[in-house]
Amino acid sequence: MSYNTFGRVFRFTTWGESHGPALGAVVDGCPPGLALSEADIQPLLDKRRPGTSRFTTQRQEPDQVRILSGVFEGRTTGTPISLMIENVDQRSKDYSEVAKAYRPGHADYAYDAKYGFRDYRGGGRSSARETAARVAAGAVARLVIPEVSIRAWVEAIGGDAIDPANFDPAQIDRNPFFCPDAAAAERWEALIDAARKSGSSLGAVIACEATGVPAGWGAPLYAKLDSELAAACMSINAVKGVEIGDGFAAASLRGEDNADAMRPGGAGADGPEFLANHAGGIAGGISTGQPVTVRVAFKPTSSILTPVETIDRDGAATEIRTKGRHDPCVGIRGAPVVEAMMALVLADQKLLHRAQCG
Amino acid sequence: MSYNTFGRVFRFTTWGESHGPALGAVVDGCPPGLALSEADIQPLLDKRRPGTSRFTTQRQEPDQVRILSGVFEGRTTGTPISLMIENVDQRSKDYSEVAKAYRPGHADYAYDAKYGFRDYRGGGRSSARETAARVAAGAVARLVIPEVSIRAWVEAIGGDAIDPANFDPAQIDRNPFFCPDAAAAERWEALIDAARKSGSSLGAVIACEATGVPAGWGAPLYAKLDSELAAACMSINAVKGVEIGDGFAAASLRGEDNADAMRPGGAGADGPEFLANHAGGIAGGISTGQPVTVRVAFKPTSSILTPVETIDRDGAATEIRTKGRHDPCVGIRGAPVVEAMMALVLADQKLLHRAQCG
Amino acid sequence: MSYNTFGRVFRFTTWGESHGPALGAVVDGCPPGLALSEADIQPLLDKRRPGTSRFTTQRQEPDQVRILSGVFEGRTTGTPISLMIENVDQRSKDYSEVAKAYRPGHADYAYDAKYGFRDYRGGGRSSARETAARVAAGAVARLVIPEVSIRAWVEAIGGDAIDPANFDPAQIDRNPFFCPDAAAAERWEALIDAARKSGSSLGAVIACEATGVPAGWGAPLYAKLDSELAAACMSINAVKGVEIGDGFAAASLRGEDNADAMRPGGAGADGPEFLANHAGGIAGGISTGQPVTVRVAFKPTSSILTPVETIDRDGAATEIRTKGRHDPCVGIRGAPVVEAMMALVLADQKLLHRAQCG
Amino acid sequence: MSYNTFGRVFRFTTWGESHGPALGAVVDGCPPGLALSEADIQPLLDKRRPGTSRFTTQRQEPDQVRILSGVFEGRTTGTPISLMIENVDQRSKDYSEVAKAYRPGHADYAYDAKYGFRDYRGGGRSSARETAARVAAGAVARLVIPEVSIRAWVEAIGGDAIDPANFDPAQIDRNPFFCPDAAAAERWEALIDAARKSGSSLGAVIACEATGVPAGWGAPLYAKLDSELAAACMSINAVKGVEIGDGFAAASLRGEDNADAMRPGGAGADGPEFLANHAGGIAGGISTGQPVTVRVAFKPTSSILTPVETIDRDGAATEIRTKGRHDPCVGIRGAPVVEAMMALVLADQKLLHRAQCG
Repeated sequence: MSYNTFGRVFRFTTWGESHGPALGAVVDGCPPGLALSEADIQPLLDKRRPGTSRFTTQRQEPDQVRILSGVFEGRTTGTPISLMIENVDQRSKDYSEVAKAYRPGHADYAYDAKYGFRDYRGGGRSSARETAARVAAGAVARLVIPEVSIRAWVEAIGGDAIDPANFDPAQIDRNPFFCPDAAAAERWEALIDAARKSGSSLGAVIACEATGVPAGWGAPLYAKLDSELAAACMSINAVKGVEIGDGFAAASLRGEDNADAMRPGGAGADGPEFLANHAGGIAGGISTGQPVTVRVAFKPTSSILTPVETIDRDGAATEIRTKGRHDPCVGIRGAPVVEAMMALVLADQKLLHRAQCG
Repeated sequence: MSYNTFGRVFRFTTWGESHGPALGAVVDGCPPGLALSEADIQPLLDKRRPGTSRFTTQRQEPDQVRILSGVFEGRTTGTPISLMIENVDQRSKDYSEVAKAYRPGHADYAYDAKYGFRDYRGGGRSSARETAARVAAGAVARLVIPEVSIRAWVEAIGGDAIDPANFDPAQIDRNPFFCPDAAAAERWEALIDAARKSGSSLGAVIACEATGVPAGWGAPLYAKLDSELAAACMSINAVKGVEIGDGFAAASLRGEDNADAMRPGGAGADGPEFLANHAGGIAGGISTGQPVTVRVAFKPTSSILTPVETIDRDGAATEIRTKGRHDPCVGIRGAPVVEAMMALVLADQKLLHRAQCG
Repeated sequence: MSYNTFGRVFRFTTWGESHGPALGAVVDGCPPGLALSEADIQPLLDKRRPGTSRFTTQRQEPDQVRILSGVFEGRTTGTPISLMIENVDQRSKDYSEVAKAYRPGHADYAYDAKYGFRDYRGGGRSSARETAARVAAGAVARLVIPEVSIRAWVEAIGGDAIDPANFDPAQIDRNPFFCPDAAAAERWEALIDAARKSGSSLGAVIACEATGVPAGWGAPLYAKLDSELAAACMSINAVKGVEIGDGFAAASLRGEDNADAMRPGGAGADGPEFLANHAGGIAGGISTGQPVTVRVAFKPTSSILTPVETIDRDGAATEIRTKGRHDPCVGIRGAPVVEAMMALVLADQKLLHRAQCG
Repeated sequence: MSYNTFGRVFRFTTWGESHGPALGAVVDGCPPGLALSEADIQPLLDKRRPGTSRFTTQRQEPDQVRILSGVFEGRTTGTPISLMIENVDQRSKDYSEVAKAYRPGHADYAYDAKYGFRDYRGGGRSSARETAARVAAGAVARLVIPEVSIRAWVEAIGGDAIDPANFDPAQIDRNPFFCPDAAAAERWEALIDAARKSGSSLGAVIACEATGVPAGWGAPLYAKLDSELAAACMSINAVKGVEIGDGFAAASLRGEDNADAMRPGGAGADGPEFLANHAGGIAGGISTGQPVTVRVAFKPTSSILTPVETIDRDGAATEIRTKGRHDPCVGIRGAPVVEAMMALVLADQKLLHRAQCG
């Protein structure tokens, strides 16, 4: 099944292909009365926009968003908000080779196996271009959770990680990599230039933190806050792993080291003081009031100039090099997308909590 | 919101607390005409059952399942299948201390923050006992996907991993740890004994592989096969991380190394021959015909005898040691649970694929 | 697809067959902290219970409900509430004839066409016995909406309607027909006795009114309060028509006669004074603060002693008379079921409204 | 909650207001490979289009649909199909009066009560203009069920019904009322002219029949074919009643008269011969192979020139006459909308049946 909707009461549906006339999202279930205009969305889209440095695809897309419904006199009405972004810089002719053969590691073969054919232009629906619609929807979600601050950054590129000792949030927006470590940003520049020149691509790890989430959002089990976050992040193109809090590292800890000890919170505090946050702000599927933290692994893109052994649509052996304009490290632009997914999940969970617990 | 249903057309809903009279699952959307009796479910429940070795909780639960509906003359009717397991060995009085103070790392505080109070007996709904209902539902799911074989094993306990060179599937059922490496199993025995004796607990990593999944199950984006698997696995108690295929390791690879090159499949083959499986059998959210592989990180349980600093229900400082009977490494019994979730997701995806693509 | 769940955030799933060991419902999404015990449910089940007069089936079912989860120390915990009712008076041998041939007007043929076979004992899942689970779930729903009073009554049996001039709510519980008109109740006694003796059955019209629903529950379009009520009522066995407010009669009115004129509500009023309620308390899918009214048509049951021309499982011509114990007018016991569905829809809509509008 | 999605696997989401820049639908879950272009949708939109005769609103909308995604080289790809229709003839200034006071019988008051304010221009989201999006989505649904023919007609206007003896399907498209009875069409002309001139409005009853539906679509209980149809039809603006088959008339029949007797179907027949169709082609929630029939009651519109007593936004008494361009009988244009909803439900049920029963 095609299933392009995410969320339970704050829900969004995305549509659109890389080389179609437009793409968009319909946001449904948004509370009424929130101030919303294109100006609330555009800056977030601009962070994700391609073509802004030599480290991303050179496709030139202004990614101008239009609000087509759900807003009246500058405020949300409670009815569906339709957001549309026109595609302006498609070059479909670049894709004649992709039409005939399957890029290993890409969705090409799987789409054909499922649907019998595919829109091969720029990856069609499997293109990371779809994430523009998520970012637009995520901008609306942020308005629903003004108590929450969300910040994502790139933690590693091609296996080269930041030094936690150098972590400086002010750096994140000062380089084209969303990198909080100035030294790492410098190294990455060379790293990506080299990968690009050699026709290769690199993976990345994104970290995201939401502060201000009160204790009590989420639910036991199947709509757990962590389960929803895992689904949200794993639904992003190229993502292969998701961790909450310490993630896989927790599997090597002992119980007493992994427990986030608590102390009375002191005057004016909303909850206890936690002495650590191994849990990533979620216990039993429910937020604890600590920062909610998630880490996401992006694989290197499969659209590379290096030739790879493959088969064509008739099953015959061939080789493929992916021309066209591609991100040498698609994970970089994943940072605003992970932020958007965090916002979308938290907005939904806030409303769900309000539904059940008043 | 409480949301205890998982799946889209093959769906299950679980209910029950650790110390209530019973727990169960309602499986809905199962195809009609499948041979089903308690004997199809019981062996899988027995694999997960507590009290079978000194390495799991000593709670004695026969975990006898009863089918209360949806089966007629030994075959599924297409109507909801109600599965019930009675609890027989509750000892709620062990929990007087837990009633008063919050176990750090456990769901206690988050539940109280959300709901205002909680069923503290054995963790109530947040107990890993709920996973018995998943295993029962998963046994039904397996009948829907006879073409698929699913196998999970424990890959590491407390940071001590198996040696891939020693991997022997025949070993998995020959030790109480679902360990495919006989040497590791021996080490783990000592490791867990030590943890148990010192009142501590250990984390674990579970790997799970499904073979026989044809190419084409899954969907782009929000009901991606990998997104559904991530949600399913992260919804299990104590899980903090999920990887598909190479997972986080893929973030360190270069594009040409991560691409799973293809060759013609040869006579009689259903699809191409893949030269590697970095993708874990999923590309663009859709199965490729390769084995579907997932890795899951379980944290060490928070119910430990080692005292930890915490607060009580009135917010005052205190310390807690969790008495009662607990798993020193809850991840071990996670192996059959991850298998069940894999089966449940694949059964749903098979039916969804059939819905859209005939 | 089998789909046995209803609701969006306050949701319930029912299971069970007429002649299985038990039937039940799992209520999910219930707010925490509500006082709930079997005693809150049993009186409503008793109203629907068979065998209480000669005008219903003579099957003797105590319909004792057990709460298996979701309640701790007398209060709902916010986790799923499992409700179970055991079947005690099955007589499956009565159904040998039904196993072989299709009762015209019954689900027999359609089930076989869909599923390839069916549980023919007492209609299996298509039996009105399933509605016991709805009534149990509905009793929980009522606790969620203490501001609302719900009352259903029988408005007509076999085409013989009550006289609105005789409407006396105090009569409803004083006769076995939920009839608010004492004179009609007397006539119906003779009517049903005659139908029963001649081996026939009668249809009925049920009306239901909910007072105390505040303005603002519901939503535009696809989760409209009226759309949800229509789905809920039409999902009851034997129902063939649903009206909101004036229903079909509104189609004969002129705009100015159908408009429910408004006046200022006066001191202390929550909203305007309405001069009429043609709309049945719902405009644009949203409650107006007036009583919410629905009318539901039940067909006469198809399980009759009068022989009817039909075919057998092999497609050969035959004739069928349905022995066994059946309701001569299943619509009568529909009154508590319609009340339950009204409660279930309103509880869900209340929580949904809270989710979006705080 | 705002909830603007309908369907389970074949799903559509609509968005847009009467006086916004555009409205549209996103169709998700459509099977791949179906031939689809704007030309498949436009003729159905044209049937519903306003301004085509003096009997509908004089708003001039070309209702040109654009397909923005989900189609490649003339065929559906299996990914979401975005359909957009621009609004071109808004005259928002007509609505200054509606902004200040509530039209009795309209959604004005309920929207304000729910959301705190509303887009009053042309009714905003509550306008029947939304149904254009349904008709566009319904056109896609029809491609999914080529075995089914769907036909709706107007059965009564303002209480003046067609004579069944005059029923001639060829007439339906020969008059502006979708009227199968030429004599009635003539009477209705005068009736509507009179209502329009007197500033009033009329209700209508629409009937819809789907032939070619095989036995076996639908499900027991909560996703019953009839329950889904009831929800679908009641979700249309101005609808107050829904009947399946004989509907309310069945409540006056005896069991033996309501049973649709069966005979062997004869050579080549797919199923039995039914001697009647009181059930409207649905038994136990599942199609029987007979025509599926539904009747729908539309109330007279509340936007009338006749002054009605009401209150303004401050709660003060006033009177309102609704200027602007309105349908004197909105039910007429309901016929293509009911057809669309029938198609959308059947497409979904076909895919759901395939999911569960292969």
